[in-house]
This record gives sequence, structure tokens and C-alpha cells, in this order.
Amino acid sequence: MKSLEFNNFLTGNISVTDEMANALLSQCNKLNVAKGTWLLRQGELSKNAYYVETGLLRQYSTDDKGKEHILQFAPQNWFISNRESEYLNKPSSYYIDAIEDSTVCVIKKDLIDNLSAKITGFADFNLQLLHKHIASLQKRITQLQSYPAHQRYLDFIQTYPDVLLRVPQTMVASYLGITPESLSRIRKELANSHRTS
Amino acid sequence: MKSLEFNNFLTGNISVTDEMANALLSQCNKLNVAKGTWLLRQGELSKNAYYVETGLLRQYSTDDKGKEHILQFAPQNWFISNRESEYLNKPSSYYIDAIEDSTVCVIKKDLIDNLSAKITGFADFNLQLLHKHIASLQKRITQLQSYPAHQRYLDFIQTYPDVLLRVPQTMVASYLGITPESLSRIRKELANSHRTS
Repeated sequence: MKSLEFNNFLTGNISVTDEMANALLSQCNKLNVAKGTWLLRQGELSKNAYYVETGLLRQYSTDDKGKEHILQFAPQNWFISNRESEYLNKPSSYYIDAIEDSTVCVIKKDLIDNLSAKITGFADFNLQLLHKHIASLQKRITQLQSYPAHQRYLDFIQTYPDVLLRVPQTMVASYLGITPESLSRIRKELANSHRTS
Repeated sequence: MKSLEFNNFLTGNISVTDEMANALLSQCNKLNVAKGTWLLRQGELSKNAYYVETGLLRQYSTDDKGKEHILQFAPQNWFISNRESEYLNKPSSYYIDAIEDSTVCVIKKDLIDNLSAKITGFADFNLQLLHKHIASLQKRITQLQSYPAHQRYLDFIQTYPDVLLRVPQTMVASYLGITPESLSRIRKELANSHRTS
């Protein structure tokens, strides 16, 4: 069942076999993460990625006024990691913490290397994941540059359909790069437009 | 000389040997691209990445009002490609065109696959490039969310020190996600603060 969910997550654009999905998941250590616990803090080095089995995590930074800016949410079946730290050996610019009590699979960098060497096609599968990640980050940049805030909000709902009601609205606003007041106005406008359409 | 420049570009965070750099560059076809020519248009499929030897390219999208939003500039020694199209077989959401007469090396997807299979360490080198790219895109998202425009402008100058004077200010504003009027105000403020400091 778990591997099926994993497949569902990946098969949007990725060619993944049950063998690859199972190879990855069967060799990961599970970790229970209590709400509010950090898996990574700004300035630390990390050698792990995380696959979320249950719960909800986020990756965020803080500015010099202490304000949080959310880069990514990671609900069930998502990956979350800081690649700058994991692969480029730089102190992380971001925090990763649990918004809810969560269970994650800890994916060590070495494991990806081993599976790439041993399983035909696994390296390609990993590359596809990276390319998909790049494409989604590029889309987010273009949205922040050019989409009106209400379109970014609608895209957020599409990207994270099960996150909206599980996090404070301040976190949604932080992800969208707008104030909570703007988010509140957008939600009212969208509700009104639905009522009159 | 060329391979040395290529190394210079990469050695910031990437472990690359002369062998790897030469293996990549010696098997690429060169292409002269006249100013204003598209290498990729929105909606097309691409199977190539480009390494810029001379000149200047950019990757951009247009919104429903026809306004351009610049994702990336690629001066000499930079790579530029649309990975969504190249690796995920999706029509490109972006255009790639030449802002100046340019010479590029055309890097076919197959070449990366071949070199990864044949040269020890090349797959890791390619992975490092991807991780570095992801880290830079994440940084850009955080900047768009949280940095004041004048800080984004200063970061632009640092990222692209030789681009500022080669492109119209409308393109710089487009990259920064601000209006040309805002950019003009920021430049004046920065000039004044330097004058009085």
C-alpha cells in the first residue's frame, strides 16, 4: 500500500517501477517527528533527505527581522531536503520542521548513490526527480514575478489540496509572499465571485 | 583557454576535472545565434541544453497580456536549458533567445547520458550541477518572497556583474519582478547613498 502511494506521487511525470520504489523505501530508516521539532536548522549541515509518510513538514527561512518565509510544504508522499547542504556541503539557508506530528523515511545521500550503482534505471529515475523539482521551482519563480496573488493562491490550492485547512493562514500567506490581510481579502473576493457566478 | 573558463565557471562548488570539462565541450556542436533569434519557443519541445561561449542569452515567459518575465540570463560560461521540455517531455513554458549575437555549444541529452556511462565521476558532476541549480532557484524564490527590491537588485549585480550594462533596464526590472520606474528609483537611491556615505 505504501509503495503504491509512493508510486502515485511519482508517476505524474516520472517512470518508476515497483522495484525502484521498494528499493528506496525498504532501506530507509523511519523517524517519528513531533510537531514543532526541527529536522534541520539554518546554519547546520545535513546529509539526509526525508520522504513524508504521514504528517506535514515545511522548509522555511527567516529574514533579518525574524519573519518566516516558507519555501515548501511537504505533506504525505512528498520529499523534503536542503540540497545545498546535502550535496554542496554548505550550511543550510533554511529550516525544516514538522507542522504536525509526522513519520518520515530518512534517505541518506549514500543510499541514493548505492541504488544508482546497483539498480538499472535508478540513476535516471533520480535525475527525473531532480528535473521535475527544477521545473516546479522555475514555475514558482515565474508565478512570484508575474501572477496576481489570487492566481498564486489558486495554484497553491491545486499544489497542496490537503494543506490549506491544516495550517494557519499566516503560513499560507508566507508561502505566497503576501500579507495575511491580502490573503484574507483574496479569499473573500473568491468566495464572492463563486457566490455570484 | 576555453576549458579553463569552463572550469572557472564550475569550480565554485563543483568538483570537475579537465578531463570531464573537455569531454563535454569537445563533443558539442557549436552554433552561431544572431541577436533576436529564438533557440526555443513557448510550446515547443527541446532536447538540448546550451553552454554559452560568447554573447548573452535569456530564458523568459510571457503572461496573458504579452508581458515578458525573465527567469534567467546566460552570459559567457553559463548553461541555459528548459529541463521540463528536455527531460520531462513537456512543451516548454519558456522562450530562450539571444540578446546579443552569440556562440553556443549545443549539449544533447544523449551526450550527458553517454558521458555519465563512460567517464567515472561524470554522473556525480552532472548531479552536482543540478543540485547547485536547485539551490540557486530556491534562493531566488526566497528573495522574491522576502527581500526588498534594492537587495534583489544588489544580488542581481553580484550574480550577473557583466550583464547590467548590456541589457535594457526594462529587462533588469523584468528579472527582478518590479516595474522599470521602481528600478529607476532604486538606482537613484543607491547612487545617493553612495554619494553621502
